[in-house]
Formats: sequence, structure tokens, C-alpha cells
Amino acid sequence: MPELRKDPIIGRWVVIGTERPRRPSDFHTRRPSRRRGATCMFCAGHEAETPPEVLASRDGPGSPWRVRVVPNKFPALRIEGDLERRGHGLYDLMNGIGAHEVIVESPRHEDTLASLPVAAVEDVVRAWRDRIVDLKRDQRFRSIVIFKAHGAAAGATILHAHSQLLATPTPPQRLADELHHARAYHDYRERCLFCDMVNQETEEQSRVVLETEHTIAFAPFAARFPFEVWVLPRRHVPAFESTGAVEQRDLARVLRGVLRRLDAALADPAYNVLLHTAPFADGESPFYHWHLEITPRLPAAAASFEWGSGFHVNPVPPEDAARFLRDAPE
Amino acid sequence: MPELRKDPIIGRWVVIGTERPRRPSDFHTRRPSRRRGATCMFCAGHEAETPPEVLASRDGPGSPWRVRVVPNKFPALRIEGDLERRGHGLYDLMNGIGAHEVIVESPRHEDTLASLPVAAVEDVVRAWRDRIVDLKRDQRFRSIVIFKAHGAAAGATILHAHSQLLATPTPPQRLADELHHARAYHDYRERCLFCDMVNQETEEQSRVVLETEHTIAFAPFAARFPFEVWVLPRRHVPAFESTGAVEQRDLARVLRGVLRRLDAALADPAYNVLLHTAPFADGESPFYHWHLEITPRLPAAAASFEWGSGFHVNPVPPEDAARFLRDAPE
Repeated sequence: MPELRKDPIIGRWVVIGTERPRRPSDFHTRRPSRRRGATCMFCAGHEAETPPEVLASRDGPGSPWRVRVVPNKFPALRIEGDLERRGHGLYDLMNGIGAHEVIVESPRHEDTLASLPVAAVEDVVRAWRDRIVDLKRDQRFRSIVIFKAHGAAAGATILHAHSQLLATPTPPQRLADELHHARAYHDYRERCLFCDMVNQETEEQSRVVLETEHTIAFAPFAARFPFEVWVLPRRHVPAFESTGAVEQRDLARVLRGVLRRLDAALADPAYNVLLHTAPFADGESPFYHWHLEITPRLPAAAASFEWGSGFHVNPVPPEDAARFLRDAPE
Repeated sequence: MPELRKDPIIGRWVVIGTERPRRPSDFHTRRPSRRRGATCMFCAGHEAETPPEVLASRDGPGSPWRVRVVPNKFPALRIEGDLERRGHGLYDLMNGIGAHEVIVESPRHEDTLASLPVAAVEDVVRAWRDRIVDLKRDQRFRSIVIFKAHGAAAGATILHAHSQLLATPTPPQRLADELHHARAYHDYRERCLFCDMVNQETEEQSRVVLETEHTIAFAPFAARFPFEVWVLPRRHVPAFESTGAVEQRDLARVLRGVLRRLDAALADPAYNVLLHTAPFADGESPFYHWHLEITPRLPAAAASFEWGSGFHVNPVPPEDAARFLRDAPE
């Protein structure tokens, strides 16, 4: 059983795998782990190689699937068991309980989220939402994060387009930090920090990449990475699962639009997408506002430098990045 | 002039380069940036290729240098100018003022910090301390971070053994977070969190890698990365620059010992070393305690996974990592 252990210095929970002992020699060489074409378990026709699906979009029973959600075959956290929160001297830990699922974004190996039609991206967005709604019922979980890695430099080990979902008994550190600061801002101003950002970016325009009726995509003022883009709903919605059908379609259009522009401007870069959504207890919060963070992972020498812990040096001003992306073909 | 911009969501300052406009095509391909042998500006005989040295250890005037500190030729922050703190709507920014220096750890291209004799590692440790003492006099700076990258996977673009120093007008985010939590712990317990960790680790022994009279190296309880090791002084010392000569020698021995064991166990892994030391205003703080964090950067498929922002999955329990490293030859 994996454990969740808390770093006492900054309060961050880490999953420590204790499934099988590993020796240092396991880490000497990069092990091949990419599956291609006929041997890919995410491709149509290989459904039996994954755990049974928990969700799929189909035109009707018996029709082929368009998006398919399955439990991760090698989960970071285990779905069965109790948390058993406990102390160990000054340290805190609990059992590594959680849900770890994979959203397979297309039945075809060669597709990418950017190359799919809008309706297919909408299927993916809807699958994210539907899985959150379902997993929220489990009283052991407090928070869900959805994460996508495209390209090896972004940490992807399977090439077939997919995103991953992790439901956890504690919010990830970054989300806890965001809530802390957003609450302080709201206490002082009685306004949502994210709504204020949406308003200022809409007014200034210099960092806007794409905007539609319900959604705005902009390069953040203090972007950590060159060509980093955030996507937010214009209206105040703390929890992603409160997004309605019309907003989901709009989000799919904007997300796809940003990814296609990144592809065009940066020649198919590796990137991560991270969904930040309110922990379940803060689903109606006046201070939180869900959003997507899209962070290209460019070659180290040319790109941003993370100076130790938390100090980023980004050579591309977000105003330049936004201009390049606005000018890029979609 | 680069800018320091503050992310309003979590309060993190980011250096935004505005020196010269860059186009997306600059990021398409990995540019060769490693210098080797005869063309390396950090090698003995190439001193004229770097900015003039600010510090060097020599046996006497005219003797060859053993460790040499120079300003970074391509600094992330500029040494001249005023901060000019200002607002821009809801955002905060200031001029990108700071010191960015390089500590060249040996005159010889083929050396690594692990392969140097203890006395040479002590020269490096002393150079770190002496530069902090000097830069602390500049009223514009509040905090110093020292960072080392070994190997391309750790972000090193120059192979010649070196570390870097950044003096900044604001502490990096991670340090601010540590101070926040360490202060809360001290408020509650009236003890230093780090001293408590040193005591518990000394007592338990299961995560200890190396210990000497003044210094302890252990795998942290909630290690983010396989084989992550922290090095702390046993006595309560908030600021690294308060370290005396005997403690510096002891630290050099332990740091070298840990690096040599990592080399032996993991076959010369890439790694980062980060010095966490109190911001200048907290140099006498009862709650902070300087330390080094050593984080191997192992191949992605086999190693730790950073799940989105702040959620790490580490497959190697620190108790196993410590045992492997204790058993590794030094």
C-alpha cells in the first residue's frame, strides 16, 4: 500500500510508493516504455488490455467509443481502503488512498488533442466533468486534479493522447497555496482575484491570446514559462463540474484553439495542461475560480530556468508570447 | 532591463526577461550550448573570457586559483539600478535587480564536486559563505539562493563544475513558504521545526545517510524524489553565513560523502543542490535553520512523477534510499 506522507516544512503531501522494493540499479538507464501502433493498449481494439472502462462516450450502445476512461493500470494511489490518518513523531501520514484514472482522448493512435475536431475535444472536456461528478460522491476524497502531458519533455511516457485524473484525500500543495492567497485577497477586497484578472486582461488586451463569449485565454502577467497560457471562464465558477454544456463547448473551442496555435508557433512543442478546480468543500466559494494552465516545455537551453525552488526566469515577456500566438494560424 | 513580476495567485515572483525580443522560432530546436575542453571559459587559462573575478581562493598572490567566483556573463538580474516597486492594475512588479554570480569549483574541466578532495570542497563551501557575507551589505537585496546543477537532466548547460548564486530583492517562493510554516510551528511548540527533525532522525536512524559531529545527512520523511537527501547542521543556525570554519570543513566532508555515494549507487546521476538559508532579516530567527537539499534527477520513466503542481509520486521510500546510500562505497 502506498503512503501519503506530509513534508512538515511546507505542508506538502507526497505519495511514497511502497509496493515493491526497488534497487538503485533500476535507475541506471532509461527503460523503454513507449508503446506504438499495434501494441498500444489505448488504441481501439485493445480494450481488453486496460482495466474495465468506467466511462465512455458512444453514439449508442454497441457503437465505437470516442473517449474512454479507465482506471490506471499502475495507479499511484489505491482505490480500496481507509485513510488511517496517523502521526509518526513529528511527521504525519495516511494510507495512499485515491482514484487514478486515464482519459483516453481518441481511439486513434495518431491523433492529438490539438488535431481532434471541436466536438471530440468537447467529449474530453465532458468526460473530465462527468468523472469529477462521480468521484465527488466518495467521502474519502477532497480534491481532484486533471493533468495532461504531451510529449516526452512534458513527462509523457505513453504517446497515445490521454489525460489523467487523480482524486486525493488532501488537495495538492499548489491548490492549497492558491486557496490561501485567493481567500486573503477576497477578505481584503471582497472580490474574486480571478474575476479581477479576467477583467483586467479583457480591458488591457495585450496578453490575450483568444477570447469567446464564455472563455478567455491569456498569457499570465508573471508567466513562469515562455508561451504559458491560462484559460478561465468569464463568469465566477469555483468548481469545474459546475460548467454547463454551452460553456463546455466554448471551452473545447478555446482549448483546441490555444493548442493549435502553440503547435503552429512552436512546431509541436511538448506541453502540460493542468486543471485547477476548487476542492469539494470550496465548490461554492466566493474566492476560487477554476482554470486551466497550459505550460509548454521547451528545450532547456532556450527556455525558462527554474532557479532552485520556486524562482523562475522566463526570457519571453507574456505580451510578446500573446502577440506571437494571436498571429499564429489556428 | 529584466522585470520581477509577482504572480498574484500564489505571490511568487518571476524574472521576466525583456532584454531582446525573441521569436517563437528561437525555441524550435535545441541549441548546442555545451563547451568542452579547450573552449571552456571556466577552465584555467581562459580567465579573460569571463567577467573579472569577484573572489578567488589562492595559496598566495600570483598562485593559481582553486575556486573562482565571477559575475554571470548572461545574468538573469542586473546589478545596477533601483528597484522602483510599482503596481500595474492588480499586479505588482519591480525592476529586475540582483546579483547573479558563478562559483567555478575547480580549474580543471574533468573534475566534479564529488571527485574533488575534501579541502577543495571546503574551498567551495567557503566561497559560498564569503560571497553571502559580501552581498548582504547591499541594502537592495533581501535573500540569497545558491544552486548547483550537475548533468544535463538537472538543467546544466555548462559541464565544467560550478554553482550559481542569486541575490534577490525578494525571497524565492519556496523559502517564503518554508518561513511561513516554520514560524507557525515555532509559535505552537516554541521549538525549531528543523531542530526537531534533526533530533528525530538522529534517534530513528532509519533515514540517516551520513552523520558527523556537526552535520547530519538524511533522506527526508516525505522525499519528493528517489534518493533525495537533505544536509543540516546539528546546531540551530538560521543563516548559512554564520557557519564557522570547523563546521564548514565538516559540511564539506558530508556533502562530498553524499555525492560520492550517489555517484556509486546511481552511476553518476544528474542532480541539483540547493542551499536554503534565512533571508537577511531572519538571520537570527529562532525558527529557521539553513540546509542543503540534494535532489537526483533520474530518468523520468523510472523516477518520481510531479503530478501537476506540487503533487509528487516517489516510488522509492526514503528508508530504502538511505539504506542503499549507507551501503554504497564512498
